Amino acid sequence: MSGERVYLYDTTLRDGAQTQGVDFSAGDKAAIARELDRLGVDYVEAGWPGANPTDDAFFAAPPKLARARLAVFGMTRRAGRSAENDPGLQAVLGTGCEVATLVGKTWDFHVEVALGVTLDENVRMIAESIAHAAKRNREVLFDAEHFFDGWRANKGFALDCLKAAQDAGARWIVLCDTNGGTLPHEIEAVVGEVIKTVPGERLAIHCHNDTGNAVANSLAAVRAGARQVQGSLNGLGERCGNADLITLIPNLILKMGYATGISAADLKHLTAASRALDERLNRAPDRAAPYVGESAFAHKGGMHVSAVAKDPRSYEHIAPELVGNRRHIIVSDQAGRSNVLAQLREVGIDIAAGDPKLARLVDEVKQREFVGYAYDGAEASFELLARRALGTVPEFFKLLSFRVLDERRWNAKNELITLSEATIKAEIEGERLMAVAEGNGPVSALDAALRKVLTPRYPTLAEMRLVDYKVRILDPQSGTGASTRVIIESADSTNARWSTVGVSTNVIDASYNALHDSITYLLLRNGHAA
Amino acid sequence: MSGERVYLYDTTLRDGAQTQGVDFSAGDKAAIARELDRLGVDYVEAGWPGANPTDDAFFAAPPKLARARLAVFGMTRRAGRSAENDPGLQAVLGTGCEVATLVGKTWDFHVEVALGVTLDENVRMIAESIAHAAKRNREVLFDAEHFFDGWRANKGFALDCLKAAQDAGARWIVLCDTNGGTLPHEIEAVVGEVIKTVPGERLAIHCHNDTGNAVANSLAAVRAGARQVQGSLNGLGERCGNADLITLIPNLILKMGYATGISAADLKHLTAASRALDERLNRAPDRAAPYVGESAFAHKGGMHVSAVAKDPRSYEHIAPELVGNRRHIIVSDQAGRSNVLAQLREVGIDIAAGDPKLARLVDEVKQREFVGYAYDGAEASFELLARRALGTVPEFFKLLSFRVLDERRWNAKNELITLSEATIKAEIEGERLMAVAEGNGPVSALDAALRKVLTPRYPTLAEMRLVDYKVRILDPQSGTGASTRVIIESADSTNARWSTVGVSTNVIDASYNALHDSITYLLLRNGHAA
Repeated sequence: MSGERVYLYDTTLRDGAQTQGVDFSAGDKAAIARELDRLGVDYVEAGWPGANPTDDAFFAAPPKLARARLAVFGMTRRAGRSAENDPGLQAVLGTGCEVATLVGKTWDFHVEVALGVTLDENVRMIAESIAHAAKRNREVLFDAEHFFDGWRANKGFALDCLKAAQDAGARWIVLCDTNGGTLPHEIEAVVGEVIKTVPGERLAIHCHNDTGNAVANSLAAVRAGARQVQGSLNGLGERCGNADLITLIPNLILKMGYATGISAADLKHLTAASRALDERLNRAPDRAAPYVGESAFAHKGGMHVSAVAKDPRSYEHIAPELVGNRRHIIVSDQAGRSNVLAQLREVGIDIAAGDPKLARLVDEVKQREFVGYAYDGAEASFELLARRALGTVPEFFKLLSFRVLDERRWNAKNELITLSEATIKAEIEGERLMAVAEGNGPVSALDAALRKVLTPRYPTLAEMRLVDYKVRILDPQSGTGASTRVIIESADSTNARWSTVGVSTNVIDASYNALHDSITYLLLRNGHAA
Repeated sequence: MSGERVYLYDTTLRDGAQTQGVDFSAGDKAAIARELDRLGVDYVEAGWPGANPTDDAFFAAPPKLARARLAVFGMTRRAGRSAENDPGLQAVLGTGCEVATLVGKTWDFHVEVALGVTLDENVRMIAESIAHAAKRNREVLFDAEHFFDGWRANKGFALDCLKAAQDAGARWIVLCDTNGGTLPHEIEAVVGEVIKTVPGERLAIHCHNDTGNAVANSLAAVRAGARQVQGSLNGLGERCGNADLITLIPNLILKMGYATGISAADLKHLTAASRALDERLNRAPDRAAPYVGESAFAHKGGMHVSAVAKDPRSYEHIAPELVGNRRHIIVSDQAGRSNVLAQLREVGIDIAAGDPKLARLVDEVKQREFVGYAYDGAEASFELLARRALGTVPEFFKLLSFRVLDERRWNAKNELITLSEATIKAEIEGERLMAVAEGNGPVSALDAALRKVLTPRYPTLAEMRLVDYKVRILDPQSGTGASTRVIIESADSTNARWSTVGVSTNVIDASYNALHDSITYLLLRNGHAA
């Protein structure tokens, strides 16, 4: 256990944004940056201004971070330009960011084939760009693209590029395994050589997962002396992804004893940080993810379970609480019960472990999870389910019926128009009420009609608004007969937020269930009696 | 590059069967065993007779394999029994299997806490069980459970267990990192010590992925001299899974130069073998899987794409064809003209880089991405967009109007029911057609009505089915005015799949757009003229 400090550099928002199917808005980027800051990484690389409008918007109004330093990414100057007059460099240094990471080539083949410049000009491009950024008081990182391929092809040239960057004032030299094809023992050997030129406290490692070794490669570089590790949340990144910081962090801290900016208390936030990213991307979290996956500490029945009951070390390499995860005992009443108890305490409901109502609630949760409900991202629905089982939720209104009509047709001006209209009939304290409303989609129409019916009696609903709406098909192989899960996030005038869930084979029906929970939760919280 | 022979032992059907949510039938097991045989692994561990009825059924009528040897798994004898009279051992040796793998404990803590027997008795249990199986002409493997934990706790005892197995005639000694908590450098060091007692050609390694290092750990053991590697297809296995053979195989062959039972021609079957398992499990394949994932050779950034076009080695660590995978060029807002050009070539459209139609298409793609379309993940819609820009997509039908009605109400039996009904009016070759259909949600009703209208004229549509449906709210902060993106995946009778996208503030409208593209794509592909 070394105790030495290793720095963590996150590139979810830049390299991770290259992931197929990922498309961050500037708002997403700000929220993820704050999440990373909360976790305790040292650097958050946020994007490449000048390369796309999203990143320009982000850097125009960057989020304030408490601990992490925001880094801006860009290229070293182009061939034939001065660093001062290079528009790309100007865009990068024009941001207020105190940390700048500039990428340059270190593989002779790439310099000659992709760039088409001489090796000498490439070295000058690096030296002048780094010097220019350093002069402008930036902490500068030099991203040595394709370094390991470059080392294999032309060791002398690859090293000359690093030396040029170091001499020009780069704080960190980042060794990138850009194509991801290098194995751990090769990384360890190369870093062991490079460190004779660039000291470990200035060496960073940046790995990709094309051989399934991004984590091991990063650890191998640290063992060889590199003191900065780059990666992304959940291993986001193009092709097979970048080194997964969520896996690397506990390996570095718990297994190898390195110090990072992440305290033991921060580390308990690891599982939440991983799931928050998936939630934002509307992805199902990877159950088998090391440390943070739902199955990472799951034990199937039989021998393993009884051994774990005797001593968790039997089949657990660490205590799951250290990383904010939980043990799951599959097909076991005891476990379900303690999970549910723990969740109840979280929402402030105290109930004795032996209360028969608890057993009924556990059964109800299991039954609902079986048909597709998920209470992990829908705490308000869980709380309602629990309070209903304890008999403390009034019925604020009774739905008699609803009808939603969506139409697409040509209007009188020969324009194709779409409209949605919802009608609701409900009963409140014996009184029958009905309303009709339009919306720019079936769910917004339904939401509008529901509030039109209810607001006269419950004025607090006027402040409520939908802030997010997610749909996931649970068993896509069933085609159009598949179950659909809708998760709705709502907010009130104070911007307090709560999430609810609905499940049905019909997306409108599932949405109604989630809407109903959302309204009930707000009324209950605001102390309404039915 | 060593050229030495490394043996591959697959445990998908035994350890992999412990995966949460996986439940193989005997028929599944036979099909997967044949798939593994086709790929060229040396051993297929198929199950544990006596432990469950599925495995009994499997071993009662095992599949005939051409190259791989079938292995049966079981425990060493229980404490206080003779090997001859142990019912578990009898069940294992009662199968006709020529290879038997017997697991025993090698961690003193586990022997004492979980088993509750003396260390000496544990060594006898191993020795007598192995000797008994070897006498019955089996090739015997000794599975040293928790070996690395055992080594850390009591090196002498752990080694005594291995020696007992070796002396009793075990062909292979399998070092298991049962809890998966060991790091590559530790594995390499321990194997380096063990090999002084058990020669490398009798040493096997069995790793779990709890630190994200199962692949690296297996490679580290091979580097230290072990000559058998155990793992599973796609890393199936409990908790975080076993070492992934699909990743290990190309690492061993292409990167480290070892010889296995897999020829260069067999290796081209790797991607198919991985996808076949997912297909059987009804799982979406992991796009980011090393070597075989759909994204493993996908290129998104504009610069990357133009460099790959010049020379694929620029951003590819191996040629994708070696493992039966292929290159994908993705269109996204990161993309410039070279991405669009490359993507066009991929779908078989040849257009000159200077063609003004290309510039218009690039603008159109950017414009559509700005309002929320995403072609990364919806290649069929991209192809249609491109072909429309080139003027080669006929209008197979003209939508006049649709209307979708969703209703929730109490029926005559006082049950709450929900129903969805869609009406469509369309025109084909001047003929007005209309249809009405029900569905278990608005999209399935719309889909059904659309096909009812079109199928008489385009019978090929009868084979098309929806296999996935995804919804994402693009700007949740806009509340119910938010844009919605729908991505639909469809399949035909040959299970060919294609994805399309639709965007609108109205989810039904967005779904219709994606459905329309999906139908148009199929008709176009099948050579229909309007």
